[in-house]
Amino acid sequence: MSKTRKISILGSTGSIGIQTLDVIEKLGDMFKINYLTINTRIDLLEPQILKFNPKGVVITDEKKYKEFKSTTSFKGKILSGEEGVIEAACDDTNDLLLTALVGFAGVIPTYHALQKGIDIALANKETLVSAGSIITKLANEKNAKILAVDSEHSAILQCLIGEDHNDIEKIILTASGGPCRTTLKSEFAKITVESALKHPNWSMGNKITIDSATMMNKGLEVIEAFWLFGLRIDQIETIIHPQSIIHSMVQFNDGSIKAQMGLPDMRVPISYALTYPKHSKFDFPRMDFEKFSTLTFEKTDLDKFECLQLAYIALKIGGTAPAIINAANEIAVQEFLNKNISFDKISYFISKALNTLEIIENPSLDELIDIDKLTRIFTLNEIKK
Amino acid sequence: MSKTRKISILGSTGSIGIQTLDVIEKLGDMFKINYLTINTRIDLLEPQILKFNPKGVVITDEKKYKEFKSTTSFKGKILSGEEGVIEAACDDTNDLLLTALVGFAGVIPTYHALQKGIDIALANKETLVSAGSIITKLANEKNAKILAVDSEHSAILQCLIGEDHNDIEKIILTASGGPCRTTLKSEFAKITVESALKHPNWSMGNKITIDSATMMNKGLEVIEAFWLFGLRIDQIETIIHPQSIIHSMVQFNDGSIKAQMGLPDMRVPISYALTYPKHSKFDFPRMDFEKFSTLTFEKTDLDKFECLQLAYIALKIGGTAPAIINAANEIAVQEFLNKNISFDKISYFISKALNTLEIIENPSLDELIDIDKLTRIFTLNEIKK
Repeated sequence: MSKTRKISILGSTGSIGIQTLDVIEKLGDMFKINYLTINTRIDLLEPQILKFNPKGVVITDEKKYKEFKSTTSFKGKILSGEEGVIEAACDDTNDLLLTALVGFAGVIPTYHALQKGIDIALANKETLVSAGSIITKLANEKNAKILAVDSEHSAILQCLIGEDHNDIEKIILTASGGPCRTTLKSEFAKITVESALKHPNWSMGNKITIDSATMMNKGLEVIEAFWLFGLRIDQIETIIHPQSIIHSMVQFNDGSIKAQMGLPDMRVPISYALTYPKHSKFDFPRMDFEKFSTLTFEKTDLDKFECLQLAYIALKIGGTAPAIINAANEIAVQEFLNKNISFDKISYFISKALNTLEIIENPSLDELIDIDKLTRIFTLNEIKK
Repeated sequence: MSKTRKISILGSTGSIGIQTLDVIEKLGDMFKINYLTINTRIDLLEPQILKFNPKGVVITDEKKYKEFKSTTSFKGKILSGEEGVIEAACDDTNDLLLTALVGFAGVIPTYHALQKGIDIALANKETLVSAGSIITKLANEKNAKILAVDSEHSAILQCLIGEDHNDIEKIILTASGGPCRTTLKSEFAKITVESALKHPNWSMGNKITIDSATMMNKGLEVIEAFWLFGLRIDQIETIIHPQSIIHSMVQFNDGSIKAQMGLPDMRVPISYALTYPKHSKFDFPRMDFEKFSTLTFEKTDLDKFECLQLAYIALKIGGTAPAIINAANEIAVQEFLNKNISFDKISYFISKALNTLEIIENPSLDELIDIDKLTRIFTLNEIKK
């Protein structure tokens, strides 16, 4: 861990990207930035370039790419488009790729990086949700690590360090319950975009915050955990824990439970993925048990949070089913954010896609890309009907 | 772990001994019993002999030894006295020694067993409290393991599996607060033996239950943790957690906390010590988060629980100071159980011994035995004044 490691960050101006750079800065010279990739926020990219002096940057948005190129004084490589992101991901000198892209877009660059045996710090859960079988198989073949950068899977990873996989009885993913935990299901139709974006504990991007409100977030995490930890579906449970202090738990064969806890601060799972398996010294605010003197738990209501139930169903169906619910969810959430559908219709349109579209049992990556596109078109059409 | 391991159990008819045999029975042929040692309860020993067919037994009480010998049909070795216990502890065929003796009596046989390189499952906390320096040094020299058989240190051990010792920021020992948690300090003088023996969560022996009421139990555990985990004193904290579900926690350098949880069931830490580092399959009752839906925490009040404060002070003083408070505590608790002193006077007499008796900086085992005896005489004299 003493030699400087080279890292590229896909999505450096998003919430996770920004916090990752904060962690990297605190780690001193442990990391050197290869590539930073962004979509549109060139205003945020400029100060990142000044501070971290990357080898290159990628701006996927064509217009912003041109604007950036004509104004910047940056002397490194400037790439654009998805091809640019793939080039950044696969750069031969990458020791680690942190991928914080949103949605299915994260799958392809990760796939290509894994083919080169590059370790992945994965903040894009759709990669495993949609292409879990292909991605984990490839990682095993190439002996590359996939380290989860979200609080729940990082918690599980931390709890499993030094443990025998065969000793696991089950894992328990905690869920805050999101902004709609106490809202009755009968009120779901009336939930506004503004209220659904008010997450009680975590500061995250819009898509993931809505996923938290529908609990699809937890559903995607269940699927992700299935692939990350090689468990049976019945070994993956969820529980509502409104304080978001316990980030997840593992129960072993003797009934002993290990939990990972702390203040809700994404920099902890980020730093753990970056310096795994070390807990490097950081001055992040510490948990204060006098302040958080009460931790509570509630059963997860699968009847109320239909998106979570759909995720379990899709995982049981297997094949392209998780990719379908993931793609349908992305469209439905976007259309909810665009105020084209009501909150309760998110699960309705996902269910519609899952029930209508053909399931392929062992899809290739190309088939997954096709089903992703097809599901988006189908769902958008359904919404516009 | 597949070959049968030979174990001797010191204190087989006590609370821990009985539960250890329950665990061993559930483990099938993983263990073969070498020796069972008891003090007086020959009525409980007979069925243990029938079930586990040990190589030998030890009855330390001379009268009960004679009674047993003249009535039993047991064909194995029957030994008596402390020499008998030492012989059982040191038996060359022991793979593991579980020592569940109460008080300072546990130190000597453990010392002798360690000299033969036998691993120790340690349920006698006074061994490390009084002779931590000597015992841990010897264990290191002989490359023998000391595995704690109490819920707190087992929790820490489980949380530290696979972790780098240098990554530890601190450990947090949880305490139920015992039967006197909500009792005002001004009421301590009026606490009866009967009420002090009513522990809210754990079923344990009398001595340890009173130690829980005074929180000396936690004090002894702080000292034990100091030796077991090689930490600085300021890295060992305590917190009141009345539900006894979280058994202890470790906080790492990144602020991440790992906690070990479960129902209060001593068979979990016992089985962990027996099959370490495996979590073997057991049907112990599982934690139900709907039943224990609220976990709470309170600051430990060192002004109220003077015994806990005295333990920290003794640890800071070092040398024979912890042995002094341990011996004084044993006498004071016994005299409280005998209704010769009031509850609030337990800490008073411990403090008296600590402040009066000479401290030796690097005591030998013989000096520790002497100071133990001396402290007992001194404390008893003080009480009888």
